[in-house]
Amino acid sequence: MKMMTSQTYTLEELTRVLGATLHGDGTQRVSGLATLTDAGPDDIAFLANRAYLRFLDETRAAAVLLPPDLVAECPVAALALDNPYLGYARLSHLFAPPLAGHQPGIHPAASVSDSARLGDEVSIGPNAVIGDHVTLGDRTVIGAGCSLGEACTVGADSLLHANVTLYHGVVIGQRAIIHSGAVVGGDGFGFAHDGMAWHKIAQIGGVVVGDDVEIGSCSSIDRGALGDTVIGDGVKIDSQVQIAHNVHIGEHCALAGCVGIAGSTRVGRHCQLGGGVGLAGHLELCDGVQITGMSLVTNSIHEPGVYSSGTGSMPNDLWRRNAVRFKQLDRMARRLARLERGEGSSREKGESH
Amino acid sequence: MKMMTSQTYTLEELTRVLGATLHGDGTQRVSGLATLTDAGPDDIAFLANRAYLRFLDETRAAAVLLPPDLVAECPVAALALDNPYLGYARLSHLFAPPLAGHQPGIHPAASVSDSARLGDEVSIGPNAVIGDHVTLGDRTVIGAGCSLGEACTVGADSLLHANVTLYHGVVIGQRAIIHSGAVVGGDGFGFAHDGMAWHKIAQIGGVVVGDDVEIGSCSSIDRGALGDTVIGDGVKIDSQVQIAHNVHIGEHCALAGCVGIAGSTRVGRHCQLGGGVGLAGHLELCDGVQITGMSLVTNSIHEPGVYSSGTGSMPNDLWRRNAVRFKQLDRMARRLARLERGEGSSREKGESH
Amino acid sequence: MKMMTSQTYTLEELTRVLGATLHGDGTQRVSGLATLTDAGPDDIAFLANRAYLRFLDETRAAAVLLPPDLVAECPVAALALDNPYLGYARLSHLFAPPLAGHQPGIHPAASVSDSARLGDEVSIGPNAVIGDHVTLGDRTVIGAGCSLGEACTVGADSLLHANVTLYHGVVIGQRAIIHSGAVVGGDGFGFAHDGMAWHKIAQIGGVVVGDDVEIGSCSSIDRGALGDTVIGDGVKIDSQVQIAHNVHIGEHCALAGCVGIAGSTRVGRHCQLGGGVGLAGHLELCDGVQITGMSLVTNSIHEPGVYSSGTGSMPNDLWRRNAVRFKQLDRMARRLARLERGEGSSREKGESH
Repeated sequence: MKMMTSQTYTLEELTRVLGATLHGDGTQRVSGLATLTDAGPDDIAFLANRAYLRFLDETRAAAVLLPPDLVAECPVAALALDNPYLGYARLSHLFAPPLAGHQPGIHPAASVSDSARLGDEVSIGPNAVIGDHVTLGDRTVIGAGCSLGEACTVGADSLLHANVTLYHGVVIGQRAIIHSGAVVGGDGFGFAHDGMAWHKIAQIGGVVVGDDVEIGSCSSIDRGALGDTVIGDGVKIDSQVQIAHNVHIGEHCALAGCVGIAGSTRVGRHCQLGGGVGLAGHLELCDGVQITGMSLVTNSIHEPGVYSSGTGSMPNDLWRRNAVRFKQLDRMARRLARLERGEGSSREKGESH
Repeated sequence: MKMMTSQTYTLEELTRVLGATLHGDGTQRVSGLATLTDAGPDDIAFLANRAYLRFLDETRAAAVLLPPDLVAECPVAALALDNPYLGYARLSHLFAPPLAGHQPGIHPAASVSDSARLGDEVSIGPNAVIGDHVTLGDRTVIGAGCSLGEACTVGADSLLHANVTLYHGVVIGQRAIIHSGAVVGGDGFGFAHDGMAWHKIAQIGGVVVGDDVEIGSCSSIDRGALGDTVIGDGVKIDSQVQIAHNVHIGEHCALAGCVGIAGSTRVGRHCQLGGGVGLAGHLELCDGVQITGMSLVTNSIHEPGVYSSGTGSMPNDLWRRNAVRFKQLDRMARRLARLERGEGSSREKGESH
Repeated sequence: MKMMTSQTYTLEELTRVLGATLHGDGTQRVSGLATLTDAGPDDIAFLANRAYLRFLDETRAAAVLLPPDLVAECPVAALALDNPYLGYARLSHLFAPPLAGHQPGIHPAASVSDSARLGDEVSIGPNAVIGDHVTLGDRTVIGAGCSLGEACTVGADSLLHANVTLYHGVVIGQRAIIHSGAVVGGDGFGFAHDGMAWHKIAQIGGVVVGDDVEIGSCSSIDRGALGDTVIGDGVKIDSQVQIAHNVHIGEHCALAGCVGIAGSTRVGRHCQLGGGVGLAGHLELCDGVQITGMSLVTNSIHEPGVYSSGTGSMPNDLWRRNAVRFKQLDRMARRLARLERGEGSSREKGESH
């Protein structure tokens, strides 16, 4: 479903916004942003990944963002810049439809504590609940049905979409975006066992989220047991992510969907966790670590680089045969070593083959 | 907790509804539906899986749905039909308790935009928020606390349970069921990196959900970056599922709980993804693919069939020994090949065994 | 973010609460609880894990909870008791900040059915919706934006944080804690296939949750198809967990984050499931089973113990080489067996090495 926006821009305007170099008619107007293959004659497109170079020749776009060395191959107007994907990111905001729901003001169906301190031009949606001693920075937007517990702080220009929950004492930095269904500050999973049953440990710590952080829909970030759970500046968290108590995420990390991080683990800066990655508790990952999708990490990582686990998928009948052998792998290794030592077939009893 | 319903049916009525063949007294009344082992003398039961045939002899049910060839073995009245499980599905709706919460009308605590267009007999619960230019089809039910952003469309006879969130411009077909906590239309996880930090890419696309789709509790379906995320007709999505931006799910797929699908992947029609399955981004799965639980798929699949990954579980001490050997597996394969070539034990230095 | 509490306690008071033995000045007052390394001179700390013994010597805490045999090594006042971690759990509640949001009373913006039965000192937050025939025990707290469907029962002293959803007929025991975004009683994932499309099976069963259960944020517990989904007394469930229809969880189990359990599986008592664990449907796990993080279990387990699956993570280049070999593992095993039989290098065609 494409929402229409009446906004149009000249190529010259866009070139200036991007600091690009224009090859073509600067007075031409565009009204949309699209991929090379989907773009029509009123759209601007982009070529950021050379795998798509084959589509450049047949694009119907009015103009294309691309790297300088590809200008000569562009059949239409070109805006040349070194990082066209970053250029696309910048243009995307110009072409996003404006939303009516974010106008300043407090909806009459919101419940705002008298002790809350609201900055200028704050927008609070219907049925939002703002607890005692909450502080909202200038131009924050609190969506419909959000619940902000006692003494939360949300920095300026932050946006909480509908139905976000912040427990008490949560601190969110500036320019945060938190998506619907996300819960920040719920109790960490802390219990002591008496030999028979589990006894709850009150989770006395908080959550501190830095500036420019995005948190995806239905993600959970738990409060600390003692001391805080900390999300560094610029961290981007996708949907369905779980971050347990006292985890620290370094600045500018990206966590894809369904990631789970157990308690007290510390992730360095500029790390990237693929979808479904699991980190065990009490680990340290240094800066610059990338973990590929659905890998489980149970030991600290001290060297930057790419790490993986798992087997890759295959047809089920082949997989069944191989998975059975995995359970015999240590025995296979011992049998191999015996053969290398020239000991022949003296296999252990019960060895299958 | 069993909720009572006063509704009862004669076996003859049920036989007619199902197009079954009745063996027994059609005037007998039943008031409930249960398994073979749990059924009492007022209940009708079903036998769909022959693994449960051993329970038929001792059932206390008034009657049993079963395939024609098992009628002779049934100790009580029998309703014979070719697909008893489908028959059970049909009967289940007759025995479900009616819920008071779905009466037509707009609750006084709902916030409905003046520009919203509401069909006939729409039901809107307390604290639901219906944004500008939203369209609700006839007989739609919007549960308590739901938030529907600007310009959403929900087709006739759809049911959104309490606390569902639709972002702006989301299109939902007819007869959809969306469970609590689900979020449709949140921003996809799109960022461009400038070498230091991530820059958000506005997610300009939408989400289009077909007819007869069910979406489980706390699931996330993100809006497209450019162009739409598309869920085909008849797709069934379980709880805790993440569907990223620009994913396309073909008609009549079933996605079990905790599935995660990364951006731009296209799943064919009639596919089944087991619980916890992960699909990497930019893949294509053809029609008729089944992926077993918790498998990770990182390559496109062009042949229908069943696919798997992983190792199977085993006692931890055995697993530890085998998992260590997995890390040596390539070296083991090379050592094996050397032995086959008659080169004996000339192992690399540092080879463990 | 540390929320201040004015409450202070003497060491003698705390010793009495814990049934500990005091070594030091009982009149000394403490105002906080912290780790050995973070504690200041007004805090009490604890030493439950001997891995942290090295921090005892330099602690600035006023006093330390520890086992009796470590009293001699404690440089400050000591409260000796056999299970210091349990002692810490008990003290944590004394030092947790009191929250204003849980005062008895019904917020004027709540919607409470006339037919609901409310115990003494119930607290119902703004925009909470209490359906017909709901029963709330004494001192229950229902947070802002919660939705409780028809005929739910919540036991005394239970706490539902903001934005929890209970569908109709859900039964919650006493002293439960349910975190924000959790959904209890949504439809199980039940469909019958007619060869072309899926047909919904009405989920007629309910959910019965015992006493002293905690359910984490954004977790889903589905209602039964026929008969109930059952969560035993004392079970602790973390965030982002999915529990499918007709699952039974035995008493005092602990389920870490992102666990998924498929339909009709029965987990015994005192089991522990690590983060991201998946259990296939229709399994039985006996009492006392532990499954390590992200393991997939596809067969019933009849012996208590620790079980695992997966490969462990490693650098990606090493992983790629090994994962390729995993796909050849059955062939490797056959080649190894041939060598053991003295058949040399008669490898199958196409065998890679």
